[in-house]
Amino acid sequence: MKKIINDPSTVVADALSGLAAAHPELLRVQQDPAVVVRADAPVSGKVAVISGGGSGHEPLHGGLVGHGMLDAACPGAVFTSPTPDQVQAAVAQTNGGAGALLLVKNYTGDVLNFETAAELAAADDVDVRSVVIDDDVAVADSTFTAGRRGVGGTLLLEKLVGAAAQRGANLDECERLAKTVVDGVRSMGMALTAPTVPHVGEPSFELADNEMEIGIGIHGEPGRERAPLEPADALVPRLLDAVVSDLPFERGDRVILFTNSMGGTPLLELYLAHGIAERLLADRGIVVERRLVGPYVTSLEMQGMSLTLLRVDDQMLELWDEPVCTPALRWGM
Amino acid sequence: MKKIINDPSTVVADALSGLAAAHPELLRVQQDPAVVVRADAPVSGKVAVISGGGSGHEPLHGGLVGHGMLDAACPGAVFTSPTPDQVQAAVAQTNGGAGALLLVKNYTGDVLNFETAAELAAADDVDVRSVVIDDDVAVADSTFTAGRRGVGGTLLLEKLVGAAAQRGANLDECERLAKTVVDGVRSMGMALTAPTVPHVGEPSFELADNEMEIGIGIHGEPGRERAPLEPADALVPRLLDAVVSDLPFERGDRVILFTNSMGGTPLLELYLAHGIAERLLADRGIVVERRLVGPYVTSLEMQGMSLTLLRVDDQMLELWDEPVCTPALRWGM
Repeated sequence: MKKIINDPSTVVADALSGLAAAHPELLRVQQDPAVVVRADAPVSGKVAVISGGGSGHEPLHGGLVGHGMLDAACPGAVFTSPTPDQVQAAVAQTNGGAGALLLVKNYTGDVLNFETAAELAAADDVDVRSVVIDDDVAVADSTFTAGRRGVGGTLLLEKLVGAAAQRGANLDECERLAKTVVDGVRSMGMALTAPTVPHVGEPSFELADNEMEIGIGIHGEPGRERAPLEPADALVPRLLDAVVSDLPFERGDRVILFTNSMGGTPLLELYLAHGIAERLLADRGIVVERRLVGPYVTSLEMQGMSLTLLRVDDQMLELWDEPVCTPALRWGM
Repeated sequence: MKKIINDPSTVVADALSGLAAAHPELLRVQQDPAVVVRADAPVSGKVAVISGGGSGHEPLHGGLVGHGMLDAACPGAVFTSPTPDQVQAAVAQTNGGAGALLLVKNYTGDVLNFETAAELAAADDVDVRSVVIDDDVAVADSTFTAGRRGVGGTLLLEKLVGAAAQRGANLDECERLAKTVVDGVRSMGMALTAPTVPHVGEPSFELADNEMEIGIGIHGEPGRERAPLEPADALVPRLLDAVVSDLPFERGDRVILFTNSMGGTPLLELYLAHGIAERLLADRGIVVERRLVGPYVTSLEMQGMSLTLLRVDDQMLELWDEPVCTPALRWGM
């Protein structure tokens, strides 16, 4: 295993120390239980928007804490759900009196632990709601999931709900928006190589030199099929067709297109793939209103990519354009 | 070779198409000769700040084109210098009547081709100056270089000079600032794995499973030594000591610290390394005023990192904080 780490058992805590040192003006880190909290939290009268999940998907979620996005993130061990006490601490530290909305990726452990935390917070008289995101069209159930997995769409969900909460939307409105986003977002990914989890020390799976995994999960879980390598001009339509036909997205739909690197794929390849996706969507009469290209929902050093489409209206575009100031996503301020 | 591409011979052109599609509000792309140009260029009365170099280091340079940073970038083939006609086209498209400053990484081909372009532009009566950056402390001469290589410091140079030009500094002032930055910036990098150039199809070098290359260049050129893998707590001081002792940076110095991923190293590891660097600098009494952490000056999918330190004063910090709006670096607007 080749990694820039010390002890695999402290890798998340060590990385969180670095995150705190790098962005003192945006966030603070509490180590035990581990929570990344917006620097100015709690914001009085504002709905707290909280997410979390296993580490190894950075910048998701800790790198998305800040003005206009997440109030707190709960980082579990690598590829492991955060514990209820982490989520409970996040609620306690960000509760500004307007309740909290938990944005939860659909993995069995995550759903269970966020649910337990919501119950604990309710006992503390905080109004806590959860919305589960399951945007991955690749498989119906999977290694860690009953139902579909939550993947790239999570970032779009966090941005839009974070912006609404920042503008003063109440908990009902934030919850309703989150459900609308979940209803209108779909993703699919693929991998060329496997990630290596530090405390495991071996690649998560084996792929032959001429193989790729189509529909991969962000923990290296199997997708739809292993297929021979193919050119980007065949691969990108394959991913996009699966996404478009699922909702389905139709001629005249307005969308945000998110072309995501799984971590190890360089921008040179990612922009190349993005250009193909833009052309295919134009051919279908689907209108790309905004785009995001980069490594945002990753799987450690795994090479691969995913495409996410979110159907939007004017209100959602306004929320997308609202100022945001986090380590990984920053504009308008 | 596992890559999301079509034909290796069109990979740069294909990626530039995607870049243009992704950021129509920030930049435009001309394909032959290849130039990435700020959307609102030429800006009348403003010094044009232009850089470029081989592709494969994204987001450097095309992802740094926009308000407050580069007016144009000239992307060569992967790891290959841009041609003089690319640079000449960049000058022609961005010349707002106040001259142009070329920021050139110190590689033999780059220096030669930018020089030729400057002569061509001078013949067109445009006042063109060049500043060469050679911030890599690892080796005195190298595979592609007489003298030191230009690496991570290039990004800091582009940000500060870009901000000065945006604020209305004239060509003399921009040139003087660029030289000050070059005088005060030092970097060193390392690699755990090799990149694969698309038109070569094989990794650029071989490293054993227990080896790393210390002082690597951003094209995979050899550095100071191959060493056995070591923990981050040994590796980071090794890089930082080389950087600090070179200038040297001294107790009381104020700096920008740039912790850069070579591409394939995940943020989890990069933030971990950044945290160590912050602690070491605090121990030495060197004051980190600003920081940047991420994959900005990369070598395709190479795993590894570099550390860059720039000595700053109040004026340089002001320039760092000035608004910037590019695909990869964006704040204040």
